[in-house]
Amino acid sequence: MKASERKVLTRIKKIINKSKSFFLAGHEKPDGDTIGAALAFGHFLARMRKKKVDIYSRHPLPKNLEFLSGILPGIKVASFTDKNYDTAIILECSNFGRMGNIIKPSQVKNIINIDHHTINNPFGTLNYINPRASSSCELVYQCLKFLGARINQDIAMALYTGLVTDTGKFQQENTTAECLRIVAELIDGGLDTARVSQKIFQQQSLGSLHLLGNVLKTLQLHYHGQVATLELPERFYQITGAAEENTEGIINYGLLIPTVELVLFFRDTERQNIVKVSLRSRTRFDVSQLVKPYDGGGHRHAAGCSVAGTIAEVKQKFLQEIAGYFRRKKC
Amino acid sequence: MKASERKVLTRIKKIINKSKSFFLAGHEKPDGDTIGAALAFGHFLARMRKKKVDIYSRHPLPKNLEFLSGILPGIKVASFTDKNYDTAIILECSNFGRMGNIIKPSQVKNIINIDHHTINNPFGTLNYINPRASSSCELVYQCLKFLGARINQDIAMALYTGLVTDTGKFQQENTTAECLRIVAELIDGGLDTARVSQKIFQQQSLGSLHLLGNVLKTLQLHYHGQVATLELPERFYQITGAAEENTEGIINYGLLIPTVELVLFFRDTERQNIVKVSLRSRTRFDVSQLVKPYDGGGHRHAAGCSVAGTIAEVKQKFLQEIAGYFRRKKC
Repeated sequence: MKASERKVLTRIKKIINKSKSFFLAGHEKPDGDTIGAALAFGHFLARMRKKKVDIYSRHPLPKNLEFLSGILPGIKVASFTDKNYDTAIILECSNFGRMGNIIKPSQVKNIINIDHHTINNPFGTLNYINPRASSSCELVYQCLKFLGARINQDIAMALYTGLVTDTGKFQQENTTAECLRIVAELIDGGLDTARVSQKIFQQQSLGSLHLLGNVLKTLQLHYHGQVATLELPERFYQITGAAEENTEGIINYGLLIPTVELVLFFRDTERQNIVKVSLRSRTRFDVSQLVKPYDGGGHRHAAGCSVAGTIAEVKQKFLQEIAGYFRRKKC
Repeated sequence: MKASERKVLTRIKKIINKSKSFFLAGHEKPDGDTIGAALAFGHFLARMRKKKVDIYSRHPLPKNLEFLSGILPGIKVASFTDKNYDTAIILECSNFGRMGNIIKPSQVKNIINIDHHTINNPFGTLNYINPRASSSCELVYQCLKFLGARINQDIAMALYTGLVTDTGKFQQENTTAECLRIVAELIDGGLDTARVSQKIFQQQSLGSLHLLGNVLKTLQLHYHGQVATLELPERFYQITGAAEENTEGIINYGLLIPTVELVLFFRDTERQNIVKVSLRSRTRFDVSQLVKPYDGGGHRHAAGCSVAGTIAEVKQKFLQEIAGYFRRKKC
């Protein structure tokens, strides 16, 4: 451990030891790493017999992560609180508001900011930030070990959830050696990773698999296999009984084809004549540039936007825009 | 390391040191662990400047693993050899013939049998068997470390292939802490696991994804969601241009539904009126029993057989047979 890291962890330890009440939250629309990190830290504080340990989330847990809610002290789903706390521990947030503005800085004495994202505004009283870490759960693990925590089964399950989801089952570039050593230690401690992984990933419904089937049949390749498109017209929801939340992950199927550099997923929305476009790219394309004219959001390899028109029209528009890119780059 | 393990590795070391020529092979219809283990060991021996190091395979490499063939000394695809060798190293084989009878025991002086399967006939002069290991690549890693090998990038890539494929991306029950520590060490050594994983797993074609889409649309649930069926009529191959090899892994989609205990996948074959049935089960069903009447093969949680009839007839037959099971078990 680096001296600078030891220094910040020592200061975090001091603040935690003297604090009695804690507000914990990850980012809005929580994912496995957000929830895992908050629950692991919160559970540890509760076991330290701190007077008040509240974990908040701006939005409900995704269905496949509901099994985690059994971990004490649980998660309060709320858009704001007027309570005051000694310390706020904000996880996975590049800025204070990213947790959904549930609390104002004036309601807390100290803010501990723990994050592994590249861009992070050091908004905390203390900032434990490491963009080389696989996940915030990796940082929470380091933190808890430094604080002398015993990693029990509940904490292990929460941490594993963040580690396995944020690394795409340990297949993505952010899978560090340290991350795998932590999982090895959790297994040594008795965690049944296969069982937890089953809970997280094996949560499809008949309708969601039918939806996947229908969307995959629309897969088309363009520009010598470098661009893939997928479509989801309104009627697929009616045929399959699936909902928008069941579309998650479908776009990644386009990247399973080795020649594909860019995937575009067009789907009808509840709003008449508005198409939602999601984009993923492997390495060459900066998809955040492609969504800029439509006020879209995202980053280099994953972005999205909403565009007026039918699926056919919007698809045509994007393919033309990309044609320009190919001409410029002489692909 | 246990004393018994050290003893067998010491004896393996002695045999390897005094041998000049080596025959290496994994099982027929090779998978990632078979190929990875053979290539890693073979590459190490070649670097030891052994006079003759030949790796054989009864069948060609699956397409997604062809990238490994660049690792010297390569793999000879053959159904037999009449050459003689000092030592045969047989990997991943529960018995000697399992490697496809490429060589007879009389053509070699020593046989080293390395395997992680529960049932293994100790057919070797030396048997390094550990059913608690995640994969044969885990055992080859231990062996190479004991032999003092430097794990270079080629060896690391081969070993990682076995570790990641045999554990289902580190999600299955056989994912040991030791397996993850080995991967951590390979990452420390410079292996780009994300890149290798991309080569192994991101190898779908447009046709194979269209095939998946068509098959998923046939998904049906039976017996209160405990049984899932999938169908692949002959015409799907014609519509999509995909081939039988593209059906691999499709059956596992049935197990993504949490209620499902048993998945049945029915597909037309080249032979008129013969349907191939593949079965997977989670925990309760012993599918090897279900295929027994049809001379099928496999084990408790994965089995298959061929049955005369149309898909509709064979499906009906199996669902009736299973109905009996539900009656007996009062499900």
